[in-house]
Amino acid sequence: MSIHTACIDACFDLAMESRGEGGLPIGSVLARGDKIIGRGHNRRVQQGNPILHGEMDALRDAGRQESYRDTVLYTSLSPCMMCAGTIVQFKIPRVVICENLNFGGNEQFLIERGVTVEVLNEQRFVDMMARFIEEQPALWDEDIAE
Amino acid sequence: MSIHTACIDACFDLAMESRGEGGLPIGSVLARGDKIIGRGHNRRVQQGNPILHGEMDALRDAGRQESYRDTVLYTSLSPCMMCAGTIVQFKIPRVVICENLNFGGNEQFLIERGVTVEVLNEQRFVDMMARFIEEQPALWDEDIAE
Repeated sequence: MSIHTACIDACFDLAMESRGEGGLPIGSVLARGDKIIGRGHNRRVQQGNPILHGEMDALRDAGRQESYRDTVLYTSLSPCMMCAGTIVQFKIPRVVICENLNFGGNEQFLIERGVTVEVLNEQRFVDMMARFIEEQPALWDEDIAE
Repeated sequence: MSIHTACIDACFDLAMESRGEGGLPIGSVLARGDKIIGRGHNRRVQQGNPILHGEMDALRDAGRQESYRDTVLYTSLSPCMMCAGTIVQFKIPRVVICENLNFGGNEQFLIERGVTVEVLNEQRFVDMMARFIEEQPALWDEDIAE
């Protein structure tokens, strides 16, 4: 299995793990070369922590890095403004977004700042997120500050 | 003492607390009305956690909130792109920046998105940060991804 495929699968598994814990089904990994160096998922419910979106949790898990210029961030759902700002601040050059049909809008912000953005829109990710939003609309609104 | 003055003093004290722990001297508080509801400081060194800038740590400390529309975020140093993105994402309407002479540049990003930005440039904050940058340039560069 390629690292690209492994990262996409890991995002899905981490999202489902979070869902199983009663949390938001959003997962993310940070990769360098052929290794995953950070794994994360949303922990708003699990830790009562509003800043731990999936992407932030993957960066937390990776710990201190000298540079992010040789890394790729994978995320099950398109990054919000917090996570997009973080990608730019950390100078992560490439982001793979597994789906942006249920949430998106910051792709252009990233592209304008030199980030390469790849959107997959794999059906399993779209379905997982749509089901969650239908089942738990209040929790979803809280997570995107609506 | 007014809540405004109390928040500014708390930012300074939290920054100094972090410095005493060997960390970056950047502190932040989130206030609602006349109460401080979140206190934080940079924890890159202390927890090996690159996402815990002062502002992020204050939001973590405040925990889940229904809304941030009636809150004010105070920070000892001007917010980086991660923290500025977070302020916009969380819809925090007002930010008080104790100094932006040693680091800044995202004030316009915030203002353009409707955030009220107040810059104090109190000398004790400017001096504290300048001294740290002079003493620990490598750690400072790491924190701003230079």
